[in-house]
Amino acid sequence: MIAQHVQDCIDACQACALACDQCADACLGEEHVHHMVACIRLDRDCAKVCQMAVSFMASNSAHAADVCKLCAHICEACAAECGQHDEDHCRACAEACRRCAEACRQMALSAHNLN
Amino acid sequence: MIAQHVQDCIDACQACALACDQCADACLGEEHVHHMVACIRLDRDCAKVCQMAVSFMASNSAHAADVCKLCAHICEACAAECGQHDEDHCRACAEACRRCAEACRQMALSAHNLN
Amino acid sequence: MIAQHVQDCIDACQACALACDQCADACLGEEHVHHMVACIRLDRDCAKVCQMAVSFMASNSAHAADVCKLCAHICEACAAECGQHDEDHCRACAEACRRCAEACRQMALSAHNLN
Amino acid sequence: MIAQHVQDCIDACQACALACDQCADACLGEEHVHHMVACIRLDRDCAKVCQMAVSFMASNSAHAADVCKLCAHICEACAAECGQHDEDHCRACAEACRRCAEACRQMALSAHNLN
Repeated sequence: MIAQHVQDCIDACQACALACDQCADACLGEEHVHHMVACIRLDRDCAKVCQMAVSFMASNSAHAADVCKLCAHICEACAAECGQHDEDHCRACAEACRRCAEACRQMALSAHNLN
Repeated sequence: MIAQHVQDCIDACQACALACDQCADACLGEEHVHHMVACIRLDRDCAKVCQMAVSFMASNSAHAADVCKLCAHICEACAAECGQHDEDHCRACAEACRRCAEACRQMALSAHNLN
Repeated sequence: MIAQHVQDCIDACQACALACDQCADACLGEEHVHHMVACIRLDRDCAKVCQMAVSFMASNSAHAADVCKLCAHICEACAAECGQHDEDHCRACAEACRRCAEACRQMALSAHNLN
Repeated sequence: MIAQHVQDCIDACQACALACDQCADACLGEEHVHHMVACIRLDRDCAKVCQMAVSFMASNSAHAADVCKLCAHICEACAAECGQHDEDHCRACAEACRRCAEACRQMALSAHNLN
């Protein structure tokens, strides 16, 4: 059985990885792609760490909380960048990143309190 | 916008990657872990290819259908192995693998018809 | 012990994943990034499948040859795209992709002959 | 151009990911697999974070040093566990983990000094 706050964090990380991959590819398709470079780079990093966080949590890893702390940090950076753009995919991505950062912080905090 | 059959396939792959990671770790925790080795190995492979399939589909990759074909193949092998075990995590994983294999076949077929 | 043709393929896949990640980021840094979009997308896909191929081979997976076949296919597509650009990172990436495609074909062929 | 300490760290992380994947699968093949469970779990985690560290460094990510710090931490845990076993694959893995932890610390330190 997976605890609820871990399941919530898995859901948030899956949604965020998806939003980041979609946003990065949509940014590459924009006419003004040269304005989207910072966004593409952060989407790329954020998708990777979210995918890894999901896998560590699903595997019940002893290091899941450490990965979630890092994930929260990168999600915040990605939310800050995507939040500056008006495209729908950037807005959706920024929102997914904010939710994921919060879920990762909760997950890391709960793990810390248990240990 | 993601087409419905692609979204269904993303959902099935995310669920399957999760079930495989959970099953592999639960198998490692079984007293009779030596009977679960084939299952652990297939869970490991299946989780990886499902994660990659999600990422290719979310990125709208031209090669997403190719990855889904491979994913269906590995999911079937994992379902066949997990389906031989009575543990709850194996039964849940076998079911997730079967659904994912079917969704991946549909996705690959639809992509083929479009191209 | 890893067979020599598998070790060669691991080396080629590691080098190719590296070259693709470097090329994608360097393309994002080019002034004419809008001309590099197809290259960035293929680099992205190729890096992922090369990383997965390394992991399947290192894990002695029963499905390593299947992954290498897919990897050869995506490497060829990436080599064809990168080969059309004059930037040093694209030329280096195209060369790494060609070598990786050849090593993956050899690996898949050897596995087929053994089975 | 990649700085030497970054290239060294990429090399160490690639070698470590390989050693961890090989060790995990070899552990699964041991008759006394039930004694190797902690090792398999750490190998699994360590391989993932090493692969991600390579990709962040190759992509010249702004978050590469953060990933390397986490990677050093997980490598140390894996080295401590593998170092308790006498199997050749565990000894090789422990050594690869120690080298990778050191290279990741150097990489993170150098990045910190630059920023």
